[in-house]
Amino acid sequence: MIRPLSNIVVLDLTHVLAGPYASMTLRDLGARVIKVERPGHGDDTRAFPPFKDGDSAYFATINHGKESIALDLRAEEDRGIFEQLLTQADVILENFRPGVMERLGYGWEALHARFPKLVYGAVSGFGHTGPDRLRPAYDMVVQARGGVMSITGEHDREPVRVGASIGDIAAGMFLCQGVLAALYAVRGGAPGQKVDIAMLDSQLALLEHAVAITSVTGEAPRPSGARHPSITPFETFHASDGLFVIAAGNDTLFATLCTALDLPLATDARFASNQARCENARLLKRLIEAVTLDQPASYWIDRLQRAGVPTGPIQSVAEVMRDPQILARNMLVDVCDQEGTPRFKAAGNPVKLSALPDKTTRPPAPILDEHRTQILNWLGEIASGSPDNAT
Amino acid sequence: MIRPLSNIVVLDLTHVLAGPYASMTLRDLGARVIKVERPGHGDDTRAFPPFKDGDSAYFATINHGKESIALDLRAEEDRGIFEQLLTQADVILENFRPGVMERLGYGWEALHARFPKLVYGAVSGFGHTGPDRLRPAYDMVVQARGGVMSITGEHDREPVRVGASIGDIAAGMFLCQGVLAALYAVRGGAPGQKVDIAMLDSQLALLEHAVAITSVTGEAPRPSGARHPSITPFETFHASDGLFVIAAGNDTLFATLCTALDLPLATDARFASNQARCENARLLKRLIEAVTLDQPASYWIDRLQRAGVPTGPIQSVAEVMRDPQILARNMLVDVCDQEGTPRFKAAGNPVKLSALPDKTTRPPAPILDEHRTQILNWLGEIASGSPDNAT
Repeated sequence: MIRPLSNIVVLDLTHVLAGPYASMTLRDLGARVIKVERPGHGDDTRAFPPFKDGDSAYFATINHGKESIALDLRAEEDRGIFEQLLTQADVILENFRPGVMERLGYGWEALHARFPKLVYGAVSGFGHTGPDRLRPAYDMVVQARGGVMSITGEHDREPVRVGASIGDIAAGMFLCQGVLAALYAVRGGAPGQKVDIAMLDSQLALLEHAVAITSVTGEAPRPSGARHPSITPFETFHASDGLFVIAAGNDTLFATLCTALDLPLATDARFASNQARCENARLLKRLIEAVTLDQPASYWIDRLQRAGVPTGPIQSVAEVMRDPQILARNMLVDVCDQEGTPRFKAAGNPVKLSALPDKTTRPPAPILDEHRTQILNWLGEIASGSPDNAT
Repeated sequence: MIRPLSNIVVLDLTHVLAGPYASMTLRDLGARVIKVERPGHGDDTRAFPPFKDGDSAYFATINHGKESIALDLRAEEDRGIFEQLLTQADVILENFRPGVMERLGYGWEALHARFPKLVYGAVSGFGHTGPDRLRPAYDMVVQARGGVMSITGEHDREPVRVGASIGDIAAGMFLCQGVLAALYAVRGGAPGQKVDIAMLDSQLALLEHAVAITSVTGEAPRPSGARHPSITPFETFHASDGLFVIAAGNDTLFATLCTALDLPLATDARFASNQARCENARLLKRLIEAVTLDQPASYWIDRLQRAGVPTGPIQSVAEVMRDPQILARNMLVDVCDQEGTPRFKAAGNPVKLSALPDKTTRPPAPILDEHRTQILNWLGEIASGSPDNAT
């Protein structure tokens, strides 16, 4: 068994989603995450719906297995505790507006001078540099400003938000990458680094295809509904009982698809290349649906899958949560209470490592300040027992 | 200067998007990436539009700065070269269907026995376990089956695809995380691990809120257009000249918004809490738009930003590529030709590390097999010169 980060202590000052998502991944990889929260209130998402028996399932989904201590970083006594925690931390994470940590005396420069191996991870709406660095942002602000909304939605209609909070989550994932890269360097003898992640930057990093098109043609792509903008057929189709997806990404797959549908179109000049199929996409869709409307989606998915054509259903989240492949991959875990009784379902760890046990349950998310005594006792033992630990 | 992965050699057998996206990030973090391609054809995306002077800007966007060697892994001579490359590699990446590497003699078990420190990263549609592991998948298949499409689109209309290829890219990002975590463990003395990433798993990992809602209420959320499903107001609004976004995520921000719009609604019982605002979201939207329709979006964005309310434009990708904050963050880089002349724009590296130089240009993507001679010379030097290197 190898829990890659089992020697790592993360001091996590982040709240809401992007930062806690990163520390959730670090915890899944074996790190000990100590969540430092505001006294009295704690992480905003403790008050986010949905609730079960008074507890936020939203908060539990992201914060399971972390420890919580409530500290007022402007109060002398709590600062003393925080200072002791800093001596034990390998990573500190924060998502305040730029400047807040400096005013508290815990900015990157100050911490780096005192703790040269500490990795400092910051995530904010617009990053710690640039003209808009002090502006507030939420997920939707960066989805809109960052261009992802402009290519999401139905053709010739208003853009829509991506249903998942990718404004936050992509930033959290890049934060996790930066922290892992910096930790790798530290383990090789290098000093710690600051990781400065902007939610807006992270949106641009998702736009590969759209940036290439805009860069070469000068024209920005627009929403294309349920269709890939430059591969055909790669979209949803109506069966007799609803929609399903066909993704025939090259000529060979298109020929296979035509055979499976009994449609003699593979050598038709209007559909013989991807470019030709893109130019005649509406006609091709009608021709395919002329066939697929005869049978239910499950019939076509089964038939096309046997033929080797990428296809599949459009599943609701409830259906995804019953999907045999998802269950076989342990991608739905039980978040339990203190007694080990399952309370909520949450997504499992998608980073499957051969030597990392892939547990089927998660401990509960902490109550605010739940681990204060335990953490203080641990710090006390370090202070009295083995001064070597207090680097 | 610290390039965290400057000692790392990545042997990259992946093609299209998910795998190459992961190796692009590893290269941005300092790794040397040797792209092993099929002779004659190479990576499929070399033939993907858009093109500039015959070269795919799509391919260049993802593969800049990598080296290319064309190897037929079923041909004896090429296998000999591959074997030599394996002795130098820290990481191998592949995105074949499960079983292909085993049939070539390079499956995880075989490689791990011979190269115990090698990190093996695999990305596939459904992962290397479970009933559907052998099925083919493309981005759209997992966006649909994984639930993200079911919550993306207009209210009461058909779901749409996320405009960005998050089916591939999220998987590539998790692959990168897994490789970094495994490398960290190897640097601490642990053996290498296999990283097994499924595109379908990765979609579930983006669904935090939707999984929590479905788990607690039993009802799966549906598309909610440009609105957050459980925060109000957190959506697009019409100004006199088009749409913009307001994201007032809590009561304080809502009160600030009301003041900035001269709308006396902050203490109105129908809007006094987030829950009340969600219940009366349509009425609230009409009341806000009654005011915002009077002035252009830029007026309201400026006014709300001054007041501290998260807000912003919905930008096209062309507008994003001119955004001063994006440019100040070096989030658009020039992919150059061999002479250093800029040819395409690509997204910059969102993982900003304080000691990692954030270059404004990228070298070109390789021509197929471009680095064969150079790589063979390097292997020859290792074989003749310093046998210590050939571990």
